[in-house]
Amino acid sequence: MNDSYGKLFTITSFGESHGRCVGVTIDGCPAGLPVTEEDIQREVDRRRPSTSTASTARAEEDRVEILSGTFNGFTTGAPICLLIWNRDINSSEYEKTRSLLRPGHADYTASMKYGGFNDFRGGGRFSGRITATFVMAGAIARKLLSLADIEVIAHTIEIGGVKALPKEIDEIRKNVDRNPLHCADPEAAGEMLQVIEKARGEGDSVGGIIEGIALNVPVGLGEPVFDTLEGDLAKALFAIPAVKGVEFGSGFAAARKRGSENNDPFIIKNGRISTATNNAGGILGGISNGMPIVVRVAVKPTSSIAQKQQTVNIEKMESATLEVRGRHDACITPRAVPVVESMMAVTLCDFAMRAGILPEVIK
Amino acid sequence: MNDSYGKLFTITSFGESHGRCVGVTIDGCPAGLPVTEEDIQREVDRRRPSTSTASTARAEEDRVEILSGTFNGFTTGAPICLLIWNRDINSSEYEKTRSLLRPGHADYTASMKYGGFNDFRGGGRFSGRITATFVMAGAIARKLLSLADIEVIAHTIEIGGVKALPKEIDEIRKNVDRNPLHCADPEAAGEMLQVIEKARGEGDSVGGIIEGIALNVPVGLGEPVFDTLEGDLAKALFAIPAVKGVEFGSGFAAARKRGSENNDPFIIKNGRISTATNNAGGILGGISNGMPIVVRVAVKPTSSIAQKQQTVNIEKMESATLEVRGRHDACITPRAVPVVESMMAVTLCDFAMRAGILPEVIK
Amino acid sequence: MNDSYGKLFTITSFGESHGRCVGVTIDGCPAGLPVTEEDIQREVDRRRPSTSTASTARAEEDRVEILSGTFNGFTTGAPICLLIWNRDINSSEYEKTRSLLRPGHADYTASMKYGGFNDFRGGGRFSGRITATFVMAGAIARKLLSLADIEVIAHTIEIGGVKALPKEIDEIRKNVDRNPLHCADPEAAGEMLQVIEKARGEGDSVGGIIEGIALNVPVGLGEPVFDTLEGDLAKALFAIPAVKGVEFGSGFAAARKRGSENNDPFIIKNGRISTATNNAGGILGGISNGMPIVVRVAVKPTSSIAQKQQTVNIEKMESATLEVRGRHDACITPRAVPVVESMMAVTLCDFAMRAGILPEVIK
Amino acid sequence: MNDSYGKLFTITSFGESHGRCVGVTIDGCPAGLPVTEEDIQREVDRRRPSTSTASTARAEEDRVEILSGTFNGFTTGAPICLLIWNRDINSSEYEKTRSLLRPGHADYTASMKYGGFNDFRGGGRFSGRITATFVMAGAIARKLLSLADIEVIAHTIEIGGVKALPKEIDEIRKNVDRNPLHCADPEAAGEMLQVIEKARGEGDSVGGIIEGIALNVPVGLGEPVFDTLEGDLAKALFAIPAVKGVEFGSGFAAARKRGSENNDPFIIKNGRISTATNNAGGILGGISNGMPIVVRVAVKPTSSIAQKQQTVNIEKMESATLEVRGRHDACITPRAVPVVESMMAVTLCDFAMRAGILPEVIK
Repeated sequence: MNDSYGKLFTITSFGESHGRCVGVTIDGCPAGLPVTEEDIQREVDRRRPSTSTASTARAEEDRVEILSGTFNGFTTGAPICLLIWNRDINSSEYEKTRSLLRPGHADYTASMKYGGFNDFRGGGRFSGRITATFVMAGAIARKLLSLADIEVIAHTIEIGGVKALPKEIDEIRKNVDRNPLHCADPEAAGEMLQVIEKARGEGDSVGGIIEGIALNVPVGLGEPVFDTLEGDLAKALFAIPAVKGVEFGSGFAAARKRGSENNDPFIIKNGRISTATNNAGGILGGISNGMPIVVRVAVKPTSSIAQKQQTVNIEKMESATLEVRGRHDACITPRAVPVVESMMAVTLCDFAMRAGILPEVIK
Repeated sequence: MNDSYGKLFTITSFGESHGRCVGVTIDGCPAGLPVTEEDIQREVDRRRPSTSTASTARAEEDRVEILSGTFNGFTTGAPICLLIWNRDINSSEYEKTRSLLRPGHADYTASMKYGGFNDFRGGGRFSGRITATFVMAGAIARKLLSLADIEVIAHTIEIGGVKALPKEIDEIRKNVDRNPLHCADPEAAGEMLQVIEKARGEGDSVGGIIEGIALNVPVGLGEPVFDTLEGDLAKALFAIPAVKGVEFGSGFAAARKRGSENNDPFIIKNGRISTATNNAGGILGGISNGMPIVVRVAVKPTSSIAQKQQTVNIEKMESATLEVRGRHDACITPRAVPVVESMMAVTLCDFAMRAGILPEVIK
Repeated sequence: MNDSYGKLFTITSFGESHGRCVGVTIDGCPAGLPVTEEDIQREVDRRRPSTSTASTARAEEDRVEILSGTFNGFTTGAPICLLIWNRDINSSEYEKTRSLLRPGHADYTASMKYGGFNDFRGGGRFSGRITATFVMAGAIARKLLSLADIEVIAHTIEIGGVKALPKEIDEIRKNVDRNPLHCADPEAAGEMLQVIEKARGEGDSVGGIIEGIALNVPVGLGEPVFDTLEGDLAKALFAIPAVKGVEFGSGFAAARKRGSENNDPFIIKNGRISTATNNAGGILGGISNGMPIVVRVAVKPTSSIAQKQQTVNIEKMESATLEVRGRHDACITPRAVPVVESMMAVTLCDFAMRAGILPEVIK
Repeated sequence: MNDSYGKLFTITSFGESHGRCVGVTIDGCPAGLPVTEEDIQREVDRRRPSTSTASTARAEEDRVEILSGTFNGFTTGAPICLLIWNRDINSSEYEKTRSLLRPGHADYTASMKYGGFNDFRGGGRFSGRITATFVMAGAIARKLLSLADIEVIAHTIEIGGVKALPKEIDEIRKNVDRNPLHCADPEAAGEMLQVIEKARGEGDSVGGIIEGIALNVPVGLGEPVFDTLEGDLAKALFAIPAVKGVEFGSGFAAARKRGSENNDPFIIKNGRISTATNNAGGILGGISNGMPIVVRVAVKPTSSIAQKQQTVNIEKMESATLEVRGRHDACITPRAVPVVESMMAVTLCDFAMRAGILPEVIK
């Protein structure tokens, strides 16, 4: 496994879904950043399941603890270790069905790669719960970016085929936490909830699309030819379980456009160079161009569904039928919204440090 | 800049479009692999413009030279440096229009990031020509993968809105090099050529979609949670200029599917575990599952178009009009096909070495 | 800071001397290795001060906890997080004297680099206590190496000018833990103790030299030209506070030898190629040659001494006098012995994995 | 192999002693640095054998060529590839004796590690000639450091047991290139020459010690706990063939000192904090403290000697006798002096960039 990400702002994730804890170490954070457990808790809480979306029942208390790297309320330059102890764990169901490979999950690949030694309980290291470690790191990253006025915001733009209407950034900012779907279009959010409820009622699940936006990113972030801004953001976003597609700006739609449509004309705006449109999603040649970074992420439908599924019993090597018990999110897209923000923030922090925009010590 | 990619099988690209050469160093290649200049030349030639698609006129001779790393026709374990000298270069047009930012290109971001010191001629380091270095490295990678029976094949599946019909792998393999579009559907290829010609006639360009497939990839490649197979493949593919989207398996379509549709049921086939469908694109939990790896890449329409475009003169800081002279591909998608294959092969080599599947010495 | 080390077997250290804990994450450890808290505790206990050397008085209970990465007593392939909670901390002395730069310590450099935000208590991140995290990682590494029959052993060969007589490996193995100095020569150990006692009595301290030996290292570890076995071992050993010199084989003495003396003649022994002498310290061209790896490490005298020292008050920017209170080791060399073993083991593990000698899963 | 070094200022070495060329790619160099081939040639020429030391007879013309990364005489931010074509190569002697393992050389380890595929001619990748690539990279690094007023200077302080008298920095600077030994003490240099001549006359060789000094290094370079300034300098220096020991400041002598002697008292000098002595070699806690960085490097005697040596014929697996033909340096220490400077400069550049002291663009 490789559980570290970032060249100068490096996060190392550890922990398992049903182990003792999930945690993350952040190395390379400048000294002098004010950080409290509450700062991080707030972001982690946004990732928690909302009762109204009838998410997984685990009463995750999820109290963030800072184990190292701060002193008198400020970062010290030393690695910051953040931890959440796992509580309220019941692994009995997993023990019972451990030989039945859950379709869409990593049961099979993890078992093969780690010779059956992997902690399978609750998906172990492949659980969505691991994204709590991303969000803890993201909380630090977002604080740091805010010093350079960089803002990262993500929102749900599609669930189960229901699309949100495009909204201005102010409205997105205002609405995104007003409904459990993190959708900036309240009407679409209502429909999405119905689609989710319907799927759940049928023992099924739905997927969705999240849009991530980064504002006030200065020109010059990205280190091509290999560490492009698109490339590293994509890599970071594919670390989120269930993400199967990533596109920037006009993305796949660009493949159907003419060059005359898709090229963003350069203009002068407020005495600075800008572009009239943003089909590039804020990135040219792998480097930020000063426009908003716009990325869209496809999230597959939840793999754990109540319906009977065909599978294999890996111990007996014979066909089998699986019924996943327990309460599972019928749509995990909304919970991935703060995770998308977090991985974007971590990536932008790293590039900002590489470009010398974030200093070694904050004054 | 960061011009190295890969952890154990590491490629380092260098050179500029109108400089003396383009080259690549491959470090970490096992010793004992038979390699000749012809082996690499063959792959580089596939990337060359075909006259029938009326691509860029540069009479690129593009002779590959091996500068280091082989001895008596075999790799030695030492870094392999591969080089193509640039010839037939005319930079006069670029000198004349250097202050006019070309929309869709890296002129603006590169100029800002490198303080105007970047070699702007022909796009310099941001030129499509740099992908010749990817293809040289890919040629080595593909030879290496073939030792483990792993095959990588890419083909054009859409251009300018014209979609190819899905084809079986045998037909793809047979047809892909039979037309200049690297499209496995001959009829669609004909239509695509017409669409490209029409765009060119109108001083415009079109984009497209490439599908990359890797066959016989063993279970277990990928090092989550951060070095997932999807994440690193995506990062590698976004290093190809003009790529704006990457998706695996059902990709963005998964967002509109039910879990019951999108989950791939596990089955037993020829005594081994397999899946009945391949919506996962061969990857579960960031790790290969033994099914074909399937990735699709969105290529934007060529940025250089003959039509007049609105832009900015960065020296005078005033609005301006740009007419790009010279012959440019009206569609670069076909030329990107061997590049997609190459970056996939380099990534798979690296993961194969990390998983201990490729040895330090080939016997 | 960069607190990670190792390319495939990667350790990430965190924590501070007077913070909540010290810990380490080990990423890339093969699955299937049996590991218990007791295994690691044993190694950590060897680093603890012995009463007979009248070391630092802190009654370190130092209970190792495994937070992640094992399941049913075996490693899982996931990152292993090991932690020791700090107890019995009294930082009041440090608070009182924080403006007085302690000569030989990192007070000044850390304060400058981290803008005064560094946790200065007990040296914070620069304390010898951080080496407990090295030893925890080393415990895992040594277990892993033992699977390949590789053994790492270190011993004190000089303290305060008293040199131990050269001993055979069997005697070293037998004697090294029989005295608190980890010295294989019992008579020299007695003298060393007296030298230490004398220095302590005079409010002073002494340094020493440790020799590290790795046995049964197969031919072929090391990745030149930059990741030589010497280079990475040296880098790892210089991470131990107070180490100021590293040499291999005949080391600095080689500078005074003739080539005819220093070259190790090749011989055939038990049907295998070997060398008659080992001036190379087991490394030729940066690669292990099958002979014992022999490295020597110079440890400076403890910086904290009871004698009055001239220094500067950094807040007032004026000359000052410092008397370090509290009980400090008059010689830290013995406590560094298990740390040398640990950093050697971690480095060898990494190279063994890079050479494909350690598998992804242990069966 | 791993042939890259440096995190932000990254050099990648390639080429073989008797292959087509030796070369290096430097990635991460800021844009805007004036660089010409002559700048680099000058440093490379310093590494060339001097006739007066009767070094290896190869009439190396060694013309440096810049293949990429500069434009109009300035660096562009793109990777800089520097190359020297090999000329005047006669490999016949090596072909004849290839089965005879040369004691002290990498013949055995390279042959084992690379399965006999390694290019053995002239030592191939393990030849001292590879250090020309270090010197080329060092030439760029030194130019870059000079912008921050950092100066790196190395000199021979001991050869064959003859020690140079300690000299002030001005005298070192003045004398170092006045004799072929790069020794700042002219009298000692004379004696050293005699010792070398005597050894050569006896078909033997001698070793020596080089001291490297870096001046005006600001406080704060070094990224502990693992990327300490000592650790990375040591790693870089051990990449130089024949180096077997590295020590900083008082080094191994510290092991015999009392703490009261070895601690450097802090003082105020010219309104800034300094130390009265420099036993620390300019590094405290792995971080530069503003004093001169002082490192000493032990160079073993040349392995290639004319005397008959006992060895093994690896093909026949039987004892054999070797007489190395051709003219070889009887002491390689002097030629390593510019290489020590180069590897120090490359390392300091990397740390300066990591600390944000060197900008992305030079203005």
